Amino acid sequence: MKYVIVGGSAAGPKTASKIRRLDQHSQVTIIQKGKYLSMASCGYPYFVGGTFDDPNALISTPTGVPRDSSYFSKVKDIDARVETEAIAIDRENKKQTIKNLTTGEEETISYDKLVLTTGASPIRPPIEGIDLQGVQHLHSMEDAIALKKVAKDPSAKVVIVGGGLIGIETCEALQLAGLDITLVEMQNQILPFLDWEMAKLVQNYMELKGINFKMGAALKRFIGEGGKLNSVELNNGEIIPCTHALFSIGVRPNVALAAKAGLKLGDFRGIQVNRFMQTSDPDIYAAGDCVEITNLITKNKQPWPMGDAANLQGRVVAQNVVLGNIEEYEGMVGTGICKVFDFNAGSTGLSEKMAREEGYNNVLTSIHAAPDKPGFMGALPMVIKLLADKSTGRFLGLQAVGLGDVSKRVAIAAMALHGRMSIADMVNLDLPYAPPFSSAIDNLITAVHVLENKWRGLMTGISAIELKERLDKGEKPFILDVRGRGEFEAMRLGIGETLIPLGQIRQREEELPKDKTTEIITYCKISLRGYEAACCLKAKGYSNVKVLEGGILAWPFKREKRFTHSLYWWIMKPPVD
Amino acid sequence: MKYVIVGGSAAGPKTASKIRRLDQHSQVTIIQKGKYLSMASCGYPYFVGGTFDDPNALISTPTGVPRDSSYFSKVKDIDARVETEAIAIDRENKKQTIKNLTTGEEETISYDKLVLTTGASPIRPPIEGIDLQGVQHLHSMEDAIALKKVAKDPSAKVVIVGGGLIGIETCEALQLAGLDITLVEMQNQILPFLDWEMAKLVQNYMELKGINFKMGAALKRFIGEGGKLNSVELNNGEIIPCTHALFSIGVRPNVALAAKAGLKLGDFRGIQVNRFMQTSDPDIYAAGDCVEITNLITKNKQPWPMGDAANLQGRVVAQNVVLGNIEEYEGMVGTGICKVFDFNAGSTGLSEKMAREEGYNNVLTSIHAAPDKPGFMGALPMVIKLLADKSTGRFLGLQAVGLGDVSKRVAIAAMALHGRMSIADMVNLDLPYAPPFSSAIDNLITAVHVLENKWRGLMTGISAIELKERLDKGEKPFILDVRGRGEFEAMRLGIGETLIPLGQIRQREEELPKDKTTEIITYCKISLRGYEAACCLKAKGYSNVKVLEGGILAWPFKREKRFTHSLYWWIMKPPVD
Repeated sequence: MKYVIVGGSAAGPKTASKIRRLDQHSQVTIIQKGKYLSMASCGYPYFVGGTFDDPNALISTPTGVPRDSSYFSKVKDIDARVETEAIAIDRENKKQTIKNLTTGEEETISYDKLVLTTGASPIRPPIEGIDLQGVQHLHSMEDAIALKKVAKDPSAKVVIVGGGLIGIETCEALQLAGLDITLVEMQNQILPFLDWEMAKLVQNYMELKGINFKMGAALKRFIGEGGKLNSVELNNGEIIPCTHALFSIGVRPNVALAAKAGLKLGDFRGIQVNRFMQTSDPDIYAAGDCVEITNLITKNKQPWPMGDAANLQGRVVAQNVVLGNIEEYEGMVGTGICKVFDFNAGSTGLSEKMAREEGYNNVLTSIHAAPDKPGFMGALPMVIKLLADKSTGRFLGLQAVGLGDVSKRVAIAAMALHGRMSIADMVNLDLPYAPPFSSAIDNLITAVHVLENKWRGLMTGISAIELKERLDKGEKPFILDVRGRGEFEAMRLGIGETLIPLGQIRQREEELPKDKTTEIITYCKISLRGYEAACCLKAKGYSNVKVLEGGILAWPFKREKRFTHSLYWWIMKPPVD
Repeated sequence: MKYVIVGGSAAGPKTASKIRRLDQHSQVTIIQKGKYLSMASCGYPYFVGGTFDDPNALISTPTGVPRDSSYFSKVKDIDARVETEAIAIDRENKKQTIKNLTTGEEETISYDKLVLTTGASPIRPPIEGIDLQGVQHLHSMEDAIALKKVAKDPSAKVVIVGGGLIGIETCEALQLAGLDITLVEMQNQILPFLDWEMAKLVQNYMELKGINFKMGAALKRFIGEGGKLNSVELNNGEIIPCTHALFSIGVRPNVALAAKAGLKLGDFRGIQVNRFMQTSDPDIYAAGDCVEITNLITKNKQPWPMGDAANLQGRVVAQNVVLGNIEEYEGMVGTGICKVFDFNAGSTGLSEKMAREEGYNNVLTSIHAAPDKPGFMGALPMVIKLLADKSTGRFLGLQAVGLGDVSKRVAIAAMALHGRMSIADMVNLDLPYAPPFSSAIDNLITAVHVLENKWRGLMTGISAIELKERLDKGEKPFILDVRGRGEFEAMRLGIGETLIPLGQIRQREEELPKDKTTEIITYCKISLRGYEAACCLKAKGYSNVKVLEGGILAWPFKREKRFTHSLYWWIMKPPVD
């Protein structure tokens, strides 16, 4: 059997290696346009930021084995053709034409099964000045090496265009290197997989770390002199001087080869594949950033340019081409995560915004803030937002941001989505508990409890966004902060709140509204004491009490004294009375 | 409504607090025999070890609220009776008799719903000398305070009897305090939730850290002079001098009150409850260490004395007594975890040993060793053992040990068990991937891939235990270590292996057995290169090639040069050629 794989980043090498393991007697050829094969491209920001300095560390080979393409021939007996381009597919005769980019020679090789793992390319609109020296992407090893040079120049001023995963991770990398960074984002939020109020918490933290943001700002042009970038201009006319710009507004599937060969494309111009990762030609499979896969929540097809999915798909394709469609790739639930400084932000499933766009109109949400383990074990805080279908209780998604162990909670929630669980299935989870790892009731489970309480009508919450909108309209609910005096002096919302510490509420009733139908909104740092206070007020006959969900920790808007007590705020030991 | 809760550690306070939040106008009384209420008793080892020094940190109240039982009355309006014992239940008249342990006064209070959260007590067999001064448990706050005093005396020599969770966590605590520690365990392994070879990896690591072990050794008696412990004697006659002994061989449900009242008990003498946590008397509920709950894998009932389960059950009971059996507690999947030094050990579901005991006779296992994230991000290693039902592919359990992020992988596997997933459901999981958190294919997913490969017959593995047994019988398979020379010199198994680095196998065929039907066993540090080598040998026509599962990292037996290169071994950067 002759297997030809086109593309050598993630899905391609995985497919080739797995084919070889399954079939030792076949001929396996992998075609790679660039110089490098099997790069861990998700590691580029960490290479740029100096977590490690040897670019070879990004090339995936087993320990002790030389990290170059000769590994593929020597160890795996795979014919690895680097700096070679796949030009055209002759489907009728099952032949692939390739071109050696060094010599210019063309060659035609025949295949029994062809696998397209052609990846994706950065979106590059025809903006004035985009070809200036100093404007670059972070998509290839060459890009990473160039950007690492920039990071070593402390006088560099960098504008990052696009607040997605790559943009945000690169912000961290370059800021840690001591550079002056401005992030320009056309939308009103960074990290589109999060809802606005969750993304804003990440942005607030990044601002504290010194990143400048230009939000809702479209890039008009790159400005240069002598072919070299010296500033960018925004649509509002603002000019930001800079020495370098990173352009990272997303990627598009590379489908030219597939399209030319007449393979079917999907609605987003990714290659169409069935559940065996087989294209419209049964002898051609495809995997990775160039295909469209199924979102298991919405059942829609979409591109999903993620390194983990590419690797998993590669393994599926290899089994199917060698053993004959024995493995299905069902799809993804939509999981993503990133680290930015010591802050983590992740999500899985649908955000509220996505749910709305997908036409879910009966969605229940909750926002919960809590430490990730007991205070005595050095807890770190986290804000979790959950989504469920109000009519069925089916769990739809989680977002989590904060200093705590976000990755574990996102993983747990992703499993709940894979298992098609409902709120009821998640209230009594048997998770690994010991004080070094979590609280007795994990904060994720507590978040589910809050969601269940809201679902059952046992708790009435109000989101920060709703409260802020109503305050901006001039409404005046009675707002009750129930923290200690010391905490209040260190930081407060400054939205007209009254302070009565939780332990004093039963004794200081005269400070509460006389009219028991007055709307009262209670909160504390994370709204645990706020919830206790709400229960207590209801017992006193107040009929319209709401808890500000997630408390001050989840408040995405300006706070009083914020900048003097900024980072303290994200640790879990506030001053007490 | 009058609610009386008997027991004030975990399930009791949770039940009382939740009842109060659900019903502000009821009368809630909580009866606690000891002085403290709502203690995070799982934190005792960390208090003893000095992670924190204020015992009040273990008492769970919201930030800024005084940590004593007055919190319950002042803030929650709960009548908290500490140092009070529940004497007898008059079920017919729905009355609970209690006794104030300070004054000796008895009182009878009536209830509409009674909740028993009487906990468990340490098993205390009538061993000679068990009442000597210096012999203690670690079950109450008083125990913890006493043991912390011991930890401050560097001349103390402590024998810990019992290698369960508490014993192991206390080992760490006291060893970090600089004490001389010997652990005595009657079984041939510590941590009974693990299989032998996984527990042995933990034990090996603890030995490297300086803990002494007496395995398979029953305690005969405690020996003392003048009422004070000075040594322990084992059944084999060995005498271990010591100043203190911690006796932690397990707990038994406290059911005297329930039994006297005629409530039904289960096979393990825990209180029987239905899925609403209701006892055989519909007006009496029970939760926590004193009840038996359902194991969702085996469907058997068993006690499950875990702090997280107790809290979750408390919440279920509160809802059911107030709102009328609206919440079910389905059961647990059997999840546990502990940290010992910088090593983590956890499990969920069935171990191979448990599966055998439960009569599963068609179980597939795999052992997989791998780093928990990319090497360039500071990966830490972990060994994962998986279990599945061979006929259905249903996933049955995971065990994980190592320096890496075990907690996340155990949590993911626990969710797979809650979701009743099969191997096929787990091969393409969409988990949160970014280099700071995991490899592109998470090591748990890779472990599932190995299991699937074995299930499909695509890979033949051999476990360390099987290989060792066969070597001990005098069998002589050809054993092939495929690491680099430098790694081999630093540490090796020393079981008659031949070294041929992976990259040289294709060139050094003459060193392999001439007879291609010879059994060949390949491995490397984690058996990734070992697997590549096996594939390569099969291609050369060798028909009986097996991979040593988990490689050297998962080898629980003695290794050559082990003690000179001990800790290095658990980091992921071996020397290379």
